[in-house]
Amino acid sequence: MELMISAIEAILDNIRDAEEFLNEEDVANFIEIITTAENIFVTGAGRSGLAAKAFAMRLMHLGLSSYVVGETISPAINKGDCILAISGSGETNTIVTTAQISKKRGAKVLALTSYPESSLGQLADEIINVKGRTKVEVDDENYLKRQIKGNYTSLTPLGTAFELTALVFLDGLVSELMDAMGKTEEDLKNMHTVLE
Amino acid sequence: MELMISAIEAILDNIRDAEEFLNEEDVANFIEIITTAENIFVTGAGRSGLAAKAFAMRLMHLGLSSYVVGETISPAINKGDCILAISGSGETNTIVTTAQISKKRGAKVLALTSYPESSLGQLADEIINVKGRTKVEVDDENYLKRQIKGNYTSLTPLGTAFELTALVFLDGLVSELMDAMGKTEEDLKNMHTVLE
Amino acid sequence: MELMISAIEAILDNIRDAEEFLNEEDVANFIEIITTAENIFVTGAGRSGLAAKAFAMRLMHLGLSSYVVGETISPAINKGDCILAISGSGETNTIVTTAQISKKRGAKVLALTSYPESSLGQLADEIINVKGRTKVEVDDENYLKRQIKGNYTSLTPLGTAFELTALVFLDGLVSELMDAMGKTEEDLKNMHTVLE
Amino acid sequence: MELMISAIEAILDNIRDAEEFLNEEDVANFIEIITTAENIFVTGAGRSGLAAKAFAMRLMHLGLSSYVVGETISPAINKGDCILAISGSGETNTIVTTAQISKKRGAKVLALTSYPESSLGQLADEIINVKGRTKVEVDDENYLKRQIKGNYTSLTPLGTAFELTALVFLDGLVSELMDAMGKTEEDLKNMHTVLE
Repeated sequence: MELMISAIEAILDNIRDAEEFLNEEDVANFIEIITTAENIFVTGAGRSGLAAKAFAMRLMHLGLSSYVVGETISPAINKGDCILAISGSGETNTIVTTAQISKKRGAKVLALTSYPESSLGQLADEIINVKGRTKVEVDDENYLKRQIKGNYTSLTPLGTAFELTALVFLDGLVSELMDAMGKTEEDLKNMHTVLE
Repeated sequence: MELMISAIEAILDNIRDAEEFLNEEDVANFIEIITTAENIFVTGAGRSGLAAKAFAMRLMHLGLSSYVVGETISPAINKGDCILAISGSGETNTIVTTAQISKKRGAKVLALTSYPESSLGQLADEIINVKGRTKVEVDDENYLKRQIKGNYTSLTPLGTAFELTALVFLDGLVSELMDAMGKTEEDLKNMHTVLE
Repeated sequence: MELMISAIEAILDNIRDAEEFLNEEDVANFIEIITTAENIFVTGAGRSGLAAKAFAMRLMHLGLSSYVVGETISPAINKGDCILAISGSGETNTIVTTAQISKKRGAKVLALTSYPESSLGQLADEIINVKGRTKVEVDDENYLKRQIKGNYTSLTPLGTAFELTALVFLDGLVSELMDAMGKTEEDLKNMHTVLE
Repeated sequence: MELMISAIEAILDNIRDAEEFLNEEDVANFIEIITTAENIFVTGAGRSGLAAKAFAMRLMHLGLSSYVVGETISPAINKGDCILAISGSGETNTIVTTAQISKKRGAKVLALTSYPESSLGQLADEIINVKGRTKVEVDDENYLKRQIKGNYTSLTPLGTAFELTALVFLDGLVSELMDAMGKTEEDLKNMHTVLE
């Protein structure tokens, strides 16, 4: 069980380290855009997509009109809408394309990425910087850099550290949204599906 | 390719045969309930679930508020809503349970089934009878009955005939809904996702 | 109910008309590639994606190793695998990109499209031509062409005719696959999920 | 941003507190069952279902045969398989039913729940106890108990604390599985989808 405990610690360490890059203004801008958008779309590939869905579900519980790109009933995105795109590297092909189309149609683009200077980061209206070892670094040829990170790398394989940090940050945002919208847990509960 | 052609013919025959069980009043009631509901939920298991999703997508294109049970952003179902449940046998466990909960909460239940006397059929407010060999008959011990249906049975394995007939009927309903709501194809196109 | 019946007839007509473009050799090649591939991936956008899923489910019932692009457990595609891509226009952005990557990695590309000369058609190893009014034609400026098709166009809005014809053709292929693999309906039933 | 930071801290606290309930033997049994099963199914409702999917994806990356209940290509579950069911309360209707059917068919049931004495807990072969405020407690009439938990409750609404703790624990399990199976991060990377 030692490895499991070490992996959990590595994940918690990453989240704590990443917290220091959180910025009051970025968070405020996210809240402002999300609460004033007509519809909020979310997108992400693989496990980042699961984090996106977990957030979209809470947006719905908050009474906001949220959609997951690729699910059955997602309509056309338009001016007045926003889209939250999650990509550790900021270079995931389908996610960058989706963000580009959305921007071109007049929607605001919110990004969660470890690389603000990435393609996604550069086209985003607002970014929350989510530090976390991403799949990009797995490809990184820089042996030294890996050595410094030591065992951590194999304990949080591929994008694990980024994905979990992004998810926890988004659940943090939910608290801010509840407060900004004056919503109680009871309000959320009333929106929760009963068909499961 | 002979088998393929025979299978296609068997599917077309089933759809044509099933058309005779269509009833003017049932269809009118479906249209009335769908166009006046606050939200329209859809549900079905396996390939019937895919037919349900294909219909929910068109309802969204029509500008209606539709949801697929089990997708990320489906909220609580309430009085004023309706749910379309698709089950050939009318006895699919999760679908019957979902319909029961929905009814208890005051939502109207619309059913597509081959068995109006089934559990689903009995609790439904409105039924469209979709004749079609269903998975139930695969289990049927009645050897003679199978013989009569002859080759057809293996050409449309499991619920194929039911599922495709249900889907075609639902696309027929879309035409009625377009007419009832005064919607053109251009209106639908404007709602179609652009993120693919 | 008249419109509904007319729409159903338009769908059936489209399927029957499209049958004439079916080609013995294409079908045989599809069967050969599908039955010898290590894994069969399927992909399609929107309702074409639902047709792809319906087919992937039957491939699984047949005991083949099938995957839906974008679902949770889809692994890397490699040489030895094949991918079935469904796109009426043959130009759907994500589908063409997916097919390109798959081909570059050595997988065989099977296409269902109304436009064999499209981007998808041109890179495909094998094509089944599925005639059917597609979303492309909705965009078509050629007023006359629309007039000729008359009422049909609004009865099968957007890609409806293509999607349903593709689905029925794929279920026809299932019959051929059952025969080629010596599978009975009972075999398929044994693979069917019991958790619904 | 204060609330967001507090929420993140509440989530981290919950994970750390829950770690103390982890048990060496339970973890070893999970690893043993997962690595020897023919197929590993996962299931969970809502956000617990997203945690289940995130884990199933990593199992696939590890080269294991994993399936998500309800996704297109999930086959029949049988003796020799196992199913991981995630439910904070251990009473989620569809999850308990799914576990019951699986057990009856001879599959092993692994549970992640906060309530080992729940319906799910009682029928499970192995349990990992995931402490965390669950939706059950939201319903709890015990006012005092809520008071003690204080602000925490609104910072991690509904099942948030349970879901995130479950997810982090499962990523901890992945480290153990990598070690037990002698897999490197490179092995996982080679299985990762390239179609996104």
